[in-house]
Amino acid sequence: MKLRPLHDRVVVRRVKEEEKTKGGIIIPDTAKEKPQEGEVVAVGKGTTGEDGKTIALDVKKGDRVLFGKWSGTEVSVNGEDLLIMKESDIMGVLEK
Amino acid sequence: MKLRPLHDRVVVRRVKEEEKTKGGIIIPDTAKEKPQEGEVVAVGKGTTGEDGKTIALDVKKGDRVLFGKWSGTEVSVNGEDLLIMKESDIMGVLEK
Amino acid sequence: MKLRPLHDRVVVRRVKEEEKTKGGIIIPDTAKEKPQEGEVVAVGKGTTGEDGKTIALDVKKGDRVLFGKWSGTEVSVNGEDLLIMKESDIMGVLEK
Amino acid sequence: MKLRPLHDRVVVRRVKEEEKTKGGIIIPDTAKEKPQEGEVVAVGKGTTGEDGKTIALDVKKGDRVLFGKWSGTEVSVNGEDLLIMKESDIMGVLEK
Amino acid sequence: MKLRPLHDRVVVRRVKEEEKTKGGIIIPDTAKEKPQEGEVVAVGKGTTGEDGKTIALDVKKGDRVLFGKWSGTEVSVNGEDLLIMKESDIMGVLEK
Amino acid sequence: MKLRPLHDRVVVRRVKEEEKTKGGIIIPDTAKEKPQEGEVVAVGKGTTGEDGKTIALDVKKGDRVLFGKWSGTEVSVNGEDLLIMKESDIMGVLEK
Amino acid sequence: MKLRPLHDRVVVRRVKEEEKTKGGIIIPDTAKEKPQEGEVVAVGKGTTGEDGKTIALDVKKGDRVLFGKWSGTEVSVNGEDLLIMKESDIMGVLEK
Repeated sequence: MKLRPLHDRVVVRRVKEEEKTKGGIIIPDTAKEKPQEGEVVAVGKGTTGEDGKTIALDVKKGDRVLFGKWSGTEVSVNGEDLLIMKESDIMGVLEK
Repeated sequence: MKLRPLHDRVVVRRVKEEEKTKGGIIIPDTAKEKPQEGEVVAVGKGTTGEDGKTIALDVKKGDRVLFGKWSGTEVSVNGEDLLIMKESDIMGVLEK
Repeated sequence: MKLRPLHDRVVVRRVKEEEKTKGGIIIPDTAKEKPQEGEVVAVGKGTTGEDGKTIALDVKKGDRVLFGKWSGTEVSVNGEDLLIMKESDIMGVLEK
Repeated sequence: MKLRPLHDRVVVRRVKEEEKTKGGIIIPDTAKEKPQEGEVVAVGKGTTGEDGKTIALDVKKGDRVLFGKWSGTEVSVNGEDLLIMKESDIMGVLEK
Repeated sequence: MKLRPLHDRVVVRRVKEEEKTKGGIIIPDTAKEKPQEGEVVAVGKGTTGEDGKTIALDVKKGDRVLFGKWSGTEVSVNGEDLLIMKESDIMGVLEK
Repeated sequence: MKLRPLHDRVVVRRVKEEEKTKGGIIIPDTAKEKPQEGEVVAVGKGTTGEDGKTIALDVKKGDRVLFGKWSGTEVSVNGEDLLIMKESDIMGVLEK
Repeated sequence: MKLRPLHDRVVVRRVKEEEKTKGGIIIPDTAKEKPQEGEVVAVGKGTTGEDGKTIALDVKKGDRVLFGKWSGTEVSVNGEDLLIMKESDIMGVLEK
């Protein structure tokens, strides 16, 4: 079974970050949450304007993307935890 | 009797999920609600722009869809409990 | 005397539902209000876009419609209690 | 002296309703305010869109209209109390 | 020195109203503020839409206008107290 | 070094007003802040609409302008304190 | 690895300002935060309107820009701390 996102939505597989909490107190240098990394699994067809034309999304399957920690909604497809979010929640694409 | 949704609204039959509460305390790993699954029963004609053109919806009768737990309004048609919601409340379509 | 609604407004006659409160405490299975049923009595000419074109409404006189419990404003015309609401407050049309 | 409303504004003369408070306590059957009745005294030229075209209003001088109890601003012209409101505050026109 | 308002702004000279507070307690018959009267001193060139066309304002120099008591910002030009406000703050024009 | 404002932003040099606080209590005749005076130092290229056309600003370098006391953000360029604000924060131009 | 921002987003490297806190109490002359300085590292392709046309951004790689202290989200790419923000968060470009 596969999840096809609608319109400007994107399905993302979160990249797990090792969260080692070593001894001692860590004082974060900023109160802002750093964005999370993920891989695009599926993309919607894009946004349809009032004139009926559809504008394709800018990200594509396989892209490594950064997104806010609280972006998207968790969905479970075939036992795998994925995130479904709007493309506008994606800040940028990591390229090699 | 049949319910025909207007414009960009969709009628959805919720798929009941077995909610087994086994012994012990379950600590949810996330505070976010997982989306619900349903089957599309009827769709509206679509949104009409200012230029009078109607843009058809992206989902169709029979689609298996995911939507937020609190999306839509419950309606009872012929004794059956259905949900009526906007297409934008639907996150994605499950395909085999 | 007759009430002609303006633009995208619709006049609706509420269908009275028998509200029998039998003995005992009823625990509602959902906190959401179920929509109300009514009959369309009159419809406005539709919305006029910035280009001056008017887009007719989707509902017509005689339609059986569902709408939210708190939608619309009560008006009294010739001693009859009616509701005046925007077409967007109407969720769907009941068809036989 | 005459008050010419601008754009989509309308000048309305409120129709006084006899407000007889007879003895005893009256329990209103609904918390919603019933709309008020008035007569249109003057109308603006209409709304001008970004393309410079003006769309005339739907109500005209002499129309009997319904509007929300708290709609509009009271103005006094030649000692007469009038209301100036936007056409969108008018719910419908009463026709014979 | 002269104040030229930008875009859809208008410079207005407030017409002073004699505010005689005679003896006794005055109970206002409405909680709403009555609008103020003024004379238009200067008008902006109008609003420029996204297509670059400018739509001229509807009021002109010398018009007697009504506006809300709290509309506009007070400016002092050559020692004279004026008000600068958007045309949309003006409710109507008083004509003889 | 020079500060080039983007889009519809304007760089303004505030005109210092002598703020003499003479003895005694001053009761302001209005609670509203009077606007501030400044000189336009640099202007952006204007706003670009969805059709890609840029609409030039209405103010130009050297204009004496009025703006709200709390408008804009203070920037320091070459040791000089300037204000950077949107053209819409400017109320009018003072002309001789 | 390189971070490509989407749409109207811009990647900025903050210019560190020496923050010397000399003895004594410093009373800031204004409660407003002065903007921060940075260098543009990468820019998105621009905004795509409903008609499918993309409008390129106004800033380019290498520009020295001013932005609000709290603008953008911190990202770490190859161990370097960068900021990703919308072009509209950038107030102006410093030119020599």
